[in-house]
Amino acid sequence: MTDLPERVEIIEEGPREGFQSEPPGIATRDKIRLIEALAETGLRHITCASFVSPKLLPQMADAEQIAEGLHQKQDVEYGALWLNDSGFRRAQATGLSLRPVLFASASDTFLLKNNNRTPDRSLTEQMAMRGLYDEAGLGRSPLYIFTAFGCNYEGSVPVDKVLAAIERLISGLADLGQKPSEICLCDTIGAANPTLVRRVIGAVRDRWPDLPIALHLHDTRGLGLANAAAGLDLGVSRFDSSIGGLGGCPFAGNRAAAGNIATEELVFLCEEMGVDTGVDLEQTIAVATLAEQIVGHPLPGRIMKAGSLKPFRARAAEVAQ
Amino acid sequence: MTDLPERVEIIEEGPREGFQSEPPGIATRDKIRLIEALAETGLRHITCASFVSPKLLPQMADAEQIAEGLHQKQDVEYGALWLNDSGFRRAQATGLSLRPVLFASASDTFLLKNNNRTPDRSLTEQMAMRGLYDEAGLGRSPLYIFTAFGCNYEGSVPVDKVLAAIERLISGLADLGQKPSEICLCDTIGAANPTLVRRVIGAVRDRWPDLPIALHLHDTRGLGLANAAAGLDLGVSRFDSSIGGLGGCPFAGNRAAAGNIATEELVFLCEEMGVDTGVDLEQTIAVATLAEQIVGHPLPGRIMKAGSLKPFRARAAEVAQ
Repeated sequence: MTDLPERVEIIEEGPREGFQSEPPGIATRDKIRLIEALAETGLRHITCASFVSPKLLPQMADAEQIAEGLHQKQDVEYGALWLNDSGFRRAQATGLSLRPVLFASASDTFLLKNNNRTPDRSLTEQMAMRGLYDEAGLGRSPLYIFTAFGCNYEGSVPVDKVLAAIERLISGLADLGQKPSEICLCDTIGAANPTLVRRVIGAVRDRWPDLPIALHLHDTRGLGLANAAAGLDLGVSRFDSSIGGLGGCPFAGNRAAAGNIATEELVFLCEEMGVDTGVDLEQTIAVATLAEQIVGHPLPGRIMKAGSLKPFRARAAEVAQ
Repeated sequence: MTDLPERVEIIEEGPREGFQSEPPGIATRDKIRLIEALAETGLRHITCASFVSPKLLPQMADAEQIAEGLHQKQDVEYGALWLNDSGFRRAQATGLSLRPVLFASASDTFLLKNNNRTPDRSLTEQMAMRGLYDEAGLGRSPLYIFTAFGCNYEGSVPVDKVLAAIERLISGLADLGQKPSEICLCDTIGAANPTLVRRVIGAVRDRWPDLPIALHLHDTRGLGLANAAAGLDLGVSRFDSSIGGLGGCPFAGNRAAAGNIATEELVFLCEEMGVDTGVDLEQTIAVATLAEQIVGHPLPGRIMKAGSLKPFRARAAEVAQ
């Protein structure tokens, strides 16, 4: 009935998507402290900063300082986000790892309202970005598809629009003689549910059976982990998540809204279902508490408040001896 | 791949399990206000109070006043909880609906520490309670099985222990020539995960294929809705839940820990998966906000902070016209 993967790879988005949702003023040294703590948990991919306009996103104005101040561990990939060539140039100038992501949106209205782009203009720009990635010698691109499960402008998003958005990027890459590395379906506004996750993944797989699928899920309406479980059941083995659930979704129109699924809860879900993550659950729970201290308000993660099942099981094992 | 039910029946536990987890001092009129608001949402079963010792649980000392003050709607069942004959007598003296629940625990240690009972003594008492229910002319008993997915004393609970706990009650009932109405598997400490939900439900169904299975889930570690989705996929059509996620789990050793799954998120999950609940999502979200006002602190529910998808879909439908 299920096709669980043996192992799941997690990209930690907390320091990037999380801190950019917080009001400005979080100290660079605290951001670095969080990233370094995350790197100790076994997480292998940490998105550390956004190289975007400091006017638009003053929270991320210290992206260079973060990259500079960071003590990098050898086996960890410290990534970043950018949206255009100047952002990419800035990221390139740092020692951060460069993940050549290409973006598209299943909802045209979202793309227009959020990025002020038509699908055609966006595609042209993305392919120009791919040109820069080629110059930089970067490998295959993961494709991030926004609003793959719903949109705050278009409401429900038909699966056909998701396929069309992917198709555009894949055709663009094919013109360059390239293939993508994965398709990451993003539940940008937290509109997914397990049935829809199965439907969209099924349709994408039918069309591109050889491409790995990843999920970027938000827990805005409480179904984030249920959607992750639905993905796991279908063999999805790559997820984005955010420590403590850091990072509300600005599109939900409410800063109190929950953000990405919490890394420590994704790790707990995987572990309990017998899927390896390479990440230490107890340590991620401790780092979630650190994240809460840094932002100075409660984060939405739950297991950080209750603790894992380890002490109960340890006590039981002791009694049994 | 899934065996979704057409319709789900929800028992609202907020006013009972929720308010008993809060510190004493919530006004009886506020409790009544919440119950009456819940009854307007389409919920058909609301557990309103616990008839337990006011010394042990001063939060529930006003159980009679609640029952008395309540304006009951005709099509709603206003229920209660009790743990012994004197509690049952008190409940009987009110106009509340009497649900002849029988209890058992998969973990013997939990039963001993939490209820100070051995399995034998508990069974004897439960069967004596059943005698009272017979005198009162009450129908078949639902069986509530505590710690069916894990225990804070015994750690993981083997499925065999779950089956044994059910078997004891079913044998006891058989001696009286009776059958139960359903088996409600309780994730008392929030230890379940989708794989375990499937495993336990599978084993219980193999043994008693004709008995409906219900789920009482806690969201202590963030997997409550994922577990509910796993149950739905297996055709489970009866759930307990709590408005706003009211009611932390005292066994988690932390008052901040999340309680039952939130009613409005269960309704959202069902609706989005095409399963009817008979409950109005927007109204449950409004009542979750009322519950938050009444307890005076944030509740763990997420969709109450973000809102449903209805406004996005309505806006999209308007644009499309």
